[in-house]
Amino acid sequence: MQAKYPSDSICIMTDLVLPGETNPLNNLFGGELLARMDRAASIAARRHSRRIVVTASVNHVAFNRAIPLGSVVTVEAKISRTFKTSMEVFIDVWIEDRESGIRHKANEAIYTFVAVDETGRPVEVPIIEPQTELEKQRYDAALRRKQLSLVLAGKMNPHEATELKALFL
Amino acid sequence: MQAKYPSDSICIMTDLVLPGETNPLNNLFGGELLARMDRAASIAARRHSRRIVVTASVNHVAFNRAIPLGSVVTVEAKISRTFKTSMEVFIDVWIEDRESGIRHKANEAIYTFVAVDETGRPVEVPIIEPQTELEKQRYDAALRRKQLSLVLAGKMNPHEATELKALFL
Amino acid sequence: MQAKYPSDSICIMTDLVLPGETNPLNNLFGGELLARMDRAASIAARRHSRRIVVTASVNHVAFNRAIPLGSVVTVEAKISRTFKTSMEVFIDVWIEDRESGIRHKANEAIYTFVAVDETGRPVEVPIIEPQTELEKQRYDAALRRKQLSLVLAGKMNPHEATELKALFL
Amino acid sequence: MQAKYPSDSICIMTDLVLPGETNPLNNLFGGELLARMDRAASIAARRHSRRIVVTASVNHVAFNRAIPLGSVVTVEAKISRTFKTSMEVFIDVWIEDRESGIRHKANEAIYTFVAVDETGRPVEVPIIEPQTELEKQRYDAALRRKQLSLVLAGKMNPHEATELKALFL
Amino acid sequence: MQAKYPSDSICIMTDLVLPGETNPLNNLFGGELLARMDRAASIAARRHSRRIVVTASVNHVAFNRAIPLGSVVTVEAKISRTFKTSMEVFIDVWIEDRESGIRHKANEAIYTFVAVDETGRPVEVPIIEPQTELEKQRYDAALRRKQLSLVLAGKMNPHEATELKALFL
Amino acid sequence: MQAKYPSDSICIMTDLVLPGETNPLNNLFGGELLARMDRAASIAARRHSRRIVVTASVNHVAFNRAIPLGSVVTVEAKISRTFKTSMEVFIDVWIEDRESGIRHKANEAIYTFVAVDETGRPVEVPIIEPQTELEKQRYDAALRRKQLSLVLAGKMNPHEATELKALFL
Repeated sequence: MQAKYPSDSICIMTDLVLPGETNPLNNLFGGELLARMDRAASIAARRHSRRIVVTASVNHVAFNRAIPLGSVVTVEAKISRTFKTSMEVFIDVWIEDRESGIRHKANEAIYTFVAVDETGRPVEVPIIEPQTELEKQRYDAALRRKQLSLVLAGKMNPHEATELKALFL
Repeated sequence: MQAKYPSDSICIMTDLVLPGETNPLNNLFGGELLARMDRAASIAARRHSRRIVVTASVNHVAFNRAIPLGSVVTVEAKISRTFKTSMEVFIDVWIEDRESGIRHKANEAIYTFVAVDETGRPVEVPIIEPQTELEKQRYDAALRRKQLSLVLAGKMNPHEATELKALFL
Repeated sequence: MQAKYPSDSICIMTDLVLPGETNPLNNLFGGELLARMDRAASIAARRHSRRIVVTASVNHVAFNRAIPLGSVVTVEAKISRTFKTSMEVFIDVWIEDRESGIRHKANEAIYTFVAVDETGRPVEVPIIEPQTELEKQRYDAALRRKQLSLVLAGKMNPHEATELKALFL
Repeated sequence: MQAKYPSDSICIMTDLVLPGETNPLNNLFGGELLARMDRAASIAARRHSRRIVVTASVNHVAFNRAIPLGSVVTVEAKISRTFKTSMEVFIDVWIEDRESGIRHKANEAIYTFVAVDETGRPVEVPIIEPQTELEKQRYDAALRRKQLSLVLAGKMNPHEATELKALFL
Repeated sequence: MQAKYPSDSICIMTDLVLPGETNPLNNLFGGELLARMDRAASIAARRHSRRIVVTASVNHVAFNRAIPLGSVVTVEAKISRTFKTSMEVFIDVWIEDRESGIRHKANEAIYTFVAVDETGRPVEVPIIEPQTELEKQRYDAALRRKQLSLVLAGKMNPHEATELKALFL
Repeated sequence: MQAKYPSDSICIMTDLVLPGETNPLNNLFGGELLARMDRAASIAARRHSRRIVVTASVNHVAFNRAIPLGSVVTVEAKISRTFKTSMEVFIDVWIEDRESGIRHKANEAIYTFVAVDETGRPVEVPIIEPQTELEKQRYDAALRRKQLSLVLAGKMNPHEATELKALFL
């Protein structure tokens, strides 16, 4: 399989915050945003792999900025790194001010998807080649996150997590 | 107010067709697609005008191609022409083949929005300057559609609809 | 197949405007109303044809009057004209004042549906015979709308659209 | 306040069974039908009283016939009897066969609503005068149901429930 | 089949009242609560019978206390009595005060479910043995409700409804 | 403020997987499960703090086991550790086999919530005292996760993350 670039599979999902999706402070519900990001990330993963994809894990989501009712929200999902059958997807969420038109970063998230065949069995995915500076940073950090995830799940000995360990020495 | 380009306010909404949105043939419900297009078009109109916007009319929607459950659907909405307080928005809908990655046009639609202030009163919007060949064609045709809409509503005498009338002479 | 009357297949859908269906001005979302009208119109088309029906186009929708949260909305859909395998459906939308009980017309719309068999292939539908004055007017105008739709899609030469052309001469 | 007839406030709600509303046997979920009947009955109660109305109780609902995905369902709600500030609403649910067009009764239900003012306090409603034979039967039975409801709630001594008691003697 | 206790199949469903589920007074819609109770009760019936279950009837629901937007609502469903192929389920609904943490009973309801096989045919269910005082009271009352339901449906002669009749003599 | 136990604020949310919530493999959508877990965790956090709470981050979610349409899913959320104004919530998700009644762990997740006042400003929360062996393990690990989260966000020097660092030495 030929390598691909992150920009080949970027998914842009712009939509409104509807009244049925808000919490008691009248901001977008965390759970609703998690669901939107899952759909956008799954589309990026599907475009990269051209396979059925299923969510394997959510590695980190930070809700830095509340998103008020009626906002225009843009969810951008891009493959940050591929492993054998899995893809890490980096998601940036933006809101924009109606009057000035200025965009602000509202939060970011990292999800992992696995490509599967019709019977649900994992299949290999094309490798990714990061291009921009940001894509390269996220690509490198993805390996540490992968090790971290294996360590936390008890599937890797912390001492073998070379890249991750280096952070602390 | 300064003129703007259609590309300044384009809205891209990529999302999945979920199981709760299908008709008995297992394709995306017409009504659900109409609702998605309305949201995407309203975002484009809002970005162009930086105002609250409300749907004024749906001028034409053709459902040329069924959109099956599980499809990735991209709705692209762009301002095609502005009038004093209203904006015509042209919407193109694309689906893509999962295995080949090829995009097909599934249907197109034309909606009209009005910009309003907080009390619901119409307010002026910036004019639009079409740039690409397609944008220019759609800009010209918008005037004929406007006349047609006024004629059909009994608010314009057919003989005064100069551009529209020219089609038939 | 025996001819039928518009009243044979009228669909009346009365329902509330729920909080999850409103826009930032607290009125029914355009997109939600489009979806309701699509369902009501598809029921009228199905009753007329006794077939599976799919939305072919939305020909015109005017949003004349905002519909506030909590309103009782009545959507009435009636076949206005039949062609070989398609049916034009005229939809009137009413809201009623809670205290006085008076009904006001909120908007109207025209949708076209095609009758299909289980494999999705178009099949013939019974012809319609308009009875009231309003049904007859809508029946006549439907032919002009059909020609217009074909002209706009580039499938009919404007000079052959006899009934439509007559409007402008 | 002037008396009214049941037909003055009848609410007809015809709609499809959508894919998101079915149970594992692919029939309309009991809970979804209960919600639709609640909305239809509340509209009838609102039309009769011209007041805000809230559900006070569901007195009886029998699910006699499964309603498959894709069905056209008609919910008809009519006031069966009024008490000082409350209204009993009788709801009939019909489904129709697509090919023959024949309607079958799918189930029926009885709800009670209370009319309230803006602060939520109960207010008086106009009395109802049944006209058809069926309306009269339901009107008479409503009193026994009212007594039964009070007896079951421990708010009426069974011996004082004259009309109800008569059934058993 | 071995007898079971009500506590073996209790279903606890705690969830929020979301903005899309409220009526014009900003309280949980009656219809939405009816749907939640139906799902909770069906889970209890399924756990008791280990079968597919379908709603047969709603015997009584009293809405005693409004449930405001944002509330935490706990729906508890327990089998109150079994008959040959059917189960009566008693549902208690609680809301809790955020600041004090105190729980209040908001309403209660009684639903009946039938256990069916894959073809929809009724199948026998294990008998239930009430244990607490409240479970015993509800078990006894269930027989009178069953008789009442048969009498009201015209399927039992009032004079044969021995337990029910005893109430009035 | 008095210390509390994890069991004081446990939230149990049992519900069905409905047809509108599934992915193309007919299993519960990752995004929908994320939303349910967010609601359950927010209820636990609210019960613990008796305050309005907002999602601050999702620290880890592993989707180990697909959850098929029609499943009974139990989401259990418990406070695992408190910090000054924030609470880490541990969520276990179970599905049960209809025929055997056996429960299986489907996945687990860790969310963090912040308690806020009516203006959205963070406020202090009571401390938690873990009691069971599992609660104690999760309590200890929470500190490492907190450090990890600060390190990844660039808000803590890896060498100061004493408990986390110890893992790798």
